[in-house]
Amino acid sequence: MTRPPCSHHNVFPPFEGSRKVYRKGVIHPGVRVPFREVELDKGKANIRLYDVTGPWSDDAAKIDLKKDLPPVRCRGKNPKGVTQRSLARRGDISPEMEFVAIREGVAAEFVRKEIAAGRAIIPANVNHPECEPMAIGRNFLVKINSNIGNSALSSGTGQELEKMLWSIRWGADTVMDLSTGKNIRETREQIIRHAPVPVGTVPIYQALEKSGGKVKDLTWEAYRDTLVEQCEQGVDYFTVHAGVLRRFVPFAKKRLTGIVSRGGAILAKWTEIHKKENFLYTHFEEICEILRAYDVAFSLGDGLRPGSTHDANDKAQFGELKVLGELTKIAWAHDVQVMIEGPGHVPLNKIKENMDLQLKICRGAPFYTLGPLVVDIGAGFDHVTSAIGAAVIGSLGTAMLCYVTPKEHLALPDKEDVKEGIIVHKIAAHAADLAKGHPMAVALNDAMSRARYEFRWEDQYRLTLDPERARRFREASLSSKEDPSARCCTMCGPDFCAMKITQD
Amino acid sequence: MTRPPCSHHNVFPPFEGSRKVYRKGVIHPGVRVPFREVELDKGKANIRLYDVTGPWSDDAAKIDLKKDLPPVRCRGKNPKGVTQRSLARRGDISPEMEFVAIREGVAAEFVRKEIAAGRAIIPANVNHPECEPMAIGRNFLVKINSNIGNSALSSGTGQELEKMLWSIRWGADTVMDLSTGKNIRETREQIIRHAPVPVGTVPIYQALEKSGGKVKDLTWEAYRDTLVEQCEQGVDYFTVHAGVLRRFVPFAKKRLTGIVSRGGAILAKWTEIHKKENFLYTHFEEICEILRAYDVAFSLGDGLRPGSTHDANDKAQFGELKVLGELTKIAWAHDVQVMIEGPGHVPLNKIKENMDLQLKICRGAPFYTLGPLVVDIGAGFDHVTSAIGAAVIGSLGTAMLCYVTPKEHLALPDKEDVKEGIIVHKIAAHAADLAKGHPMAVALNDAMSRARYEFRWEDQYRLTLDPERARRFREASLSSKEDPSARCCTMCGPDFCAMKITQD
Repeated sequence: MTRPPCSHHNVFPPFEGSRKVYRKGVIHPGVRVPFREVELDKGKANIRLYDVTGPWSDDAAKIDLKKDLPPVRCRGKNPKGVTQRSLARRGDISPEMEFVAIREGVAAEFVRKEIAAGRAIIPANVNHPECEPMAIGRNFLVKINSNIGNSALSSGTGQELEKMLWSIRWGADTVMDLSTGKNIRETREQIIRHAPVPVGTVPIYQALEKSGGKVKDLTWEAYRDTLVEQCEQGVDYFTVHAGVLRRFVPFAKKRLTGIVSRGGAILAKWTEIHKKENFLYTHFEEICEILRAYDVAFSLGDGLRPGSTHDANDKAQFGELKVLGELTKIAWAHDVQVMIEGPGHVPLNKIKENMDLQLKICRGAPFYTLGPLVVDIGAGFDHVTSAIGAAVIGSLGTAMLCYVTPKEHLALPDKEDVKEGIIVHKIAAHAADLAKGHPMAVALNDAMSRARYEFRWEDQYRLTLDPERARRFREASLSSKEDPSARCCTMCGPDFCAMKITQD
Repeated sequence: MTRPPCSHHNVFPPFEGSRKVYRKGVIHPGVRVPFREVELDKGKANIRLYDVTGPWSDDAAKIDLKKDLPPVRCRGKNPKGVTQRSLARRGDISPEMEFVAIREGVAAEFVRKEIAAGRAIIPANVNHPECEPMAIGRNFLVKINSNIGNSALSSGTGQELEKMLWSIRWGADTVMDLSTGKNIRETREQIIRHAPVPVGTVPIYQALEKSGGKVKDLTWEAYRDTLVEQCEQGVDYFTVHAGVLRRFVPFAKKRLTGIVSRGGAILAKWTEIHKKENFLYTHFEEICEILRAYDVAFSLGDGLRPGSTHDANDKAQFGELKVLGELTKIAWAHDVQVMIEGPGHVPLNKIKENMDLQLKICRGAPFYTLGPLVVDIGAGFDHVTSAIGAAVIGSLGTAMLCYVTPKEHLALPDKEDVKEGIIVHKIAAHAADLAKGHPMAVALNDAMSRARYEFRWEDQYRLTLDPERARRFREASLSSKEDPSARCCTMCGPDFCAMKITQD
């Protein structure tokens, strides 16, 4: 494998002016919740930020990349099929719930209620003790997911581990390993054992590999074995395209861009070849039982999401959504946690309908959307076309946003693309949090504005999403004579700075 | 001056696969409207796109940078104070209106009605014959503006001309010369004489320079002389901060980030020093008469726009907006065209209120917004925080979006920043057009989606906003063995491409 930059302790240094701090649990004293504390100028209160980087940014943690991350949770065997949902429903506040409560600045009982109602999930496989608990739900901070994983045409195992570490460095709340190429199992093992965030997968990809890559030869048995294998490894949530039913395929055929979900296309083809209903649908209760045993969460896949704004909100898409609503009920009856995947390519005027319908049909289960991309002509800039739709749907109640990188529709992203994709979707998530009035988002925003108005440049850098970039942009523009702490920048110069004039 | 890359004819070659075509007027046979025609694969209909590049992309036009651009309009003297508004109101369809009608694919009479009602403007100074007429109004394509101009700390004259050419190359519909540094007049002259798009300015900047840079010494007379000078030169629209009244200053002082508009700060300071009302307000009718004589349009400035999401939609901002509504009425009575500038930093949940109030208070006059930026922590990525808000407010009816570059809040943008800022705001404008169902936007989008579904990679590149970038992204990822026309990309590889599976 390609070795990450440093193999003996934290892979990346903490952001300048930041340090890792922890808060302990009260109900569960073993709980230890990390934050990134940003030190501000003298006399200004420091600010604590949500931190997803786990031990990788902790100088005190001695990490050996050849070994697994030290566990933060102690479960493992789960013979009774206990899940966060079953615990919440019987009134128990688990260590995971308290962890989330401290992280998000809310009461533990509030977390329990949200989980019990199905409005939020804590994806945490009993076999992923390296994972720090986090919540996905519309009454929590909006989360973002980074997709990594190789394809047959590129990217080796070590590279994917690096992308995972790089993803959390820039703030990804979960990662999905979407590998379809070689060494799927080994790639995933490396990722899970080193991930302090939940890891999601789409098991149909590996099941297809097991069937020799032939859709025709795909069987329920191969799929089931794959599920068990991945549950044992510690995957925290699975995309399951159980809503792609035979009766929707004719609708999809009439579209401008057909089916654009890989899983959706595979299953639609399977139903057409075998003239049988989607086996994920017919075996759904068995899938629930497997997931329950490990407390793996469903991410019910939108295999019929629109691949162009032209196809948005059509019969295929909304037909599938209705089925996902039925499946949510079934999963909940098994005490399995559920979130719902959403589109796709959707013009701005059709976004709200998606959110409203999802909430109604899926009874408040968290929505997890890809974008939506609000135009189709953005190739090369689709991280932005996606961030626009993501911010809007996030402000309306979507709980997690799947990032899109500048390479979308063109190629597999490299590290710089991953970073760019994550940062613009962090912006989208923050815009949504702010629109919803989340106190942590408002506090961060106001701290930044105050630093800006007071010309505290160092504090401004520290409070942005990429301190190094902000500093470089400003300082590169200054001549050697200029004081980097000056009360102006080259945009307006000293005489035309509005804030300076106002203060004078 | 720094010489643009080529001094004898078109400065930049047309986009690959595109050629310049013209359509002639019917009412006015002298009218000749340019389009960029994109040639698509055999059997596919070519598509004509709105084109702002003027003769600069026309191989047939021999341009000498030492001379002015050849004129496309023939007016000049205007002793009777005729304006597009006065013509429209008396029922005349001007050559400019027909030009716009052909450009936008609507009836000339429709354009006339929109201008007469004040819902749209055609900024076209009688002394800017190099300018190709264009409309700003919510029933037309959403436009974008690129800000250029030097500050005391950087950027010479030639660089600003280059930035103007670079701006139109990537699709800016208007440019504003916001120079505050040296050689303001010369910089502007170079820009206007070579700009096929309307040029806007903020005359208070030059007036302040004329007053020795001292706000205290600023006078109505110096401002009036500046206005006349710039009208004579051919500026097409002026930002005039006539709504910054004394009574609003106390509200602004209570804010988190005070006043962040340069013009707003200058005028607020002036009113405080002199204990008099803003002279732009008290002399507003005289300003109207000057603008009328040259058919220069107002861009009524939002000097009290919020500089942080915290300050959005407050008393200072909305107090000023109300005054802008009164001033709109006065300008209209003088048959001067008007648009209204808008914020600023506004969280997503407060954007709609801005649009609704502006439409109501300003009786449908076009709204022209900076962003809005939906978060405050985006330094280094503020082109994206702005594009998010811009797309949303555009979809609600804003007629023109002022771009923001990645350097916002940090430094004066360079050429790459200008390009990045323009492209993401073109995406925002296109997202808004699509949301409003504009047929030209829908046609372009669907052509792209069809090309994508049919794996016509060359056509996809041609239909994106930066063909070279899209091609580079995809082709750099392919190994030398792979066919660049293959029905897949490295994202999914050949076996997992959903569109390919669907088609098979």
